[in-house]
Amino acid sequence: MAFDDHDYSTVVANIRAFVQEREWEPFHDPKNLAMAVVSEAGELAAELRWVPGHDADAHCKDPAHREAIADEVADVAITLFMLADRIGLDLRAAMTRKLEKNRAKYPVEAWRGR
Amino acid sequence: MAFDDHDYSTVVANIRAFVQEREWEPFHDPKNLAMAVVSEAGELAAELRWVPGHDADAHCKDPAHREAIADEVADVAITLFMLADRIGLDLRAAMTRKLEKNRAKYPVEAWRGR
Amino acid sequence: MAFDDHDYSTVVANIRAFVQEREWEPFHDPKNLAMAVVSEAGELAAELRWVPGHDADAHCKDPAHREAIADEVADVAITLFMLADRIGLDLRAAMTRKLEKNRAKYPVEAWRGR
Amino acid sequence: MAFDDHDYSTVVANIRAFVQEREWEPFHDPKNLAMAVVSEAGELAAELRWVPGHDADAHCKDPAHREAIADEVADVAITLFMLADRIGLDLRAAMTRKLEKNRAKYPVEAWRGR
Repeated sequence: MAFDDHDYSTVVANIRAFVQEREWEPFHDPKNLAMAVVSEAGELAAELRWVPGHDADAHCKDPAHREAIADEVADVAITLFMLADRIGLDLRAAMTRKLEKNRAKYPVEAWRGR
Repeated sequence: MAFDDHDYSTVVANIRAFVQEREWEPFHDPKNLAMAVVSEAGELAAELRWVPGHDADAHCKDPAHREAIADEVADVAITLFMLADRIGLDLRAAMTRKLEKNRAKYPVEAWRGR
Repeated sequence: MAFDDHDYSTVVANIRAFVQEREWEPFHDPKNLAMAVVSEAGELAAELRWVPGHDADAHCKDPAHREAIADEVADVAITLFMLADRIGLDLRAAMTRKLEKNRAKYPVEAWRGR
Repeated sequence: MAFDDHDYSTVVANIRAFVQEREWEPFHDPKNLAMAVVSEAGELAAELRWVPGHDADAHCKDPAHREAIADEVADVAITLFMLADRIGLDLRAAMTRKLEKNRAKYPVEAWRGR
């Protein structure tokens, strides 16, 4: 089946339509979008800054916080997909290539449990 | 065809294997991953901080910078997918829901070109 | 005169009192404060993300935006001074040392205008 | 005594000279500097992202990490002072004003220990 939980084509189309309908392309140069990514990432960090690390899993599953956290994760993702789309980057391929680099940089034997 | 540019299932599986092989789950609580997201977002911002906005599109397509920028975008994405996976969040669904909220928050008529 | 625009002793004392009165020390470990710094930095970035670089000086002086920007700059500074105080770091000395390193890293002859 | 640990006038003069000698003013518009602040804040976050909160105080005092952390805190501060100087902001006064707002926003009685 082409369309499942991991198929992001409709999300990408939605994001593009969202930007085009508002005629926001002039504001969405890659520099501005990179700034938007860090702003949104900062909001995500704000959700967890005072939460102890050992409570963070439970905090993220707590219905009292779940939606806010999901929204912040989503905002970072939306902005990042906007940026990838703007610069013509196949994000999936870029992630695969970078994971290969990370595998080479952090060999399992040397980095297990570190 | 199930497997195309927008199918992220293999990327998600790759990311999960990358973490498990290195036994990094104890370090990957959601708070630490949120901090990692902002760190990676900061590295992305670093790539564009001195580039004028009107040169940013060309800069991102310039072969001299392309790979570095693709790698930074990918690092943010990888870390964000790690976080979504850790907290059991369907990132695609979260993005779709948040886009709906953003549509409501920024009505086309009021926000066109602003 | 001991007390002038560049004497931060009263600000540091104010910050410390602000934290102590609220009994926030348990939340203010250095990790949490570093996360707070990036959150506040993200809010500062948000103020300027859609402003073209060539308008940014005027934007920051525009009374319509001045207070918001001053507040965001101040929030980053307050959080950073909290962190320095928490870890017993003489921030002024650390800045002086780092500037010396930066001078060595970026020699004038090689980096003029770049 | 005018010159003590809390007198930042020489640091501000040093920062200004550092920028002027390299003729970096054209790159240092407030937007670029705000991006630089978030980049540096991201590097600071990177120093602590995998450190458990309860080890963070000791980690920051450990000679093996002390200099790196001091340097990252200093880099955020230097960039923030650059930004304040660029926009003609009296940072000390801005911090004092913002602390007053924060006192009003978080009354002691309501926020003690929270």
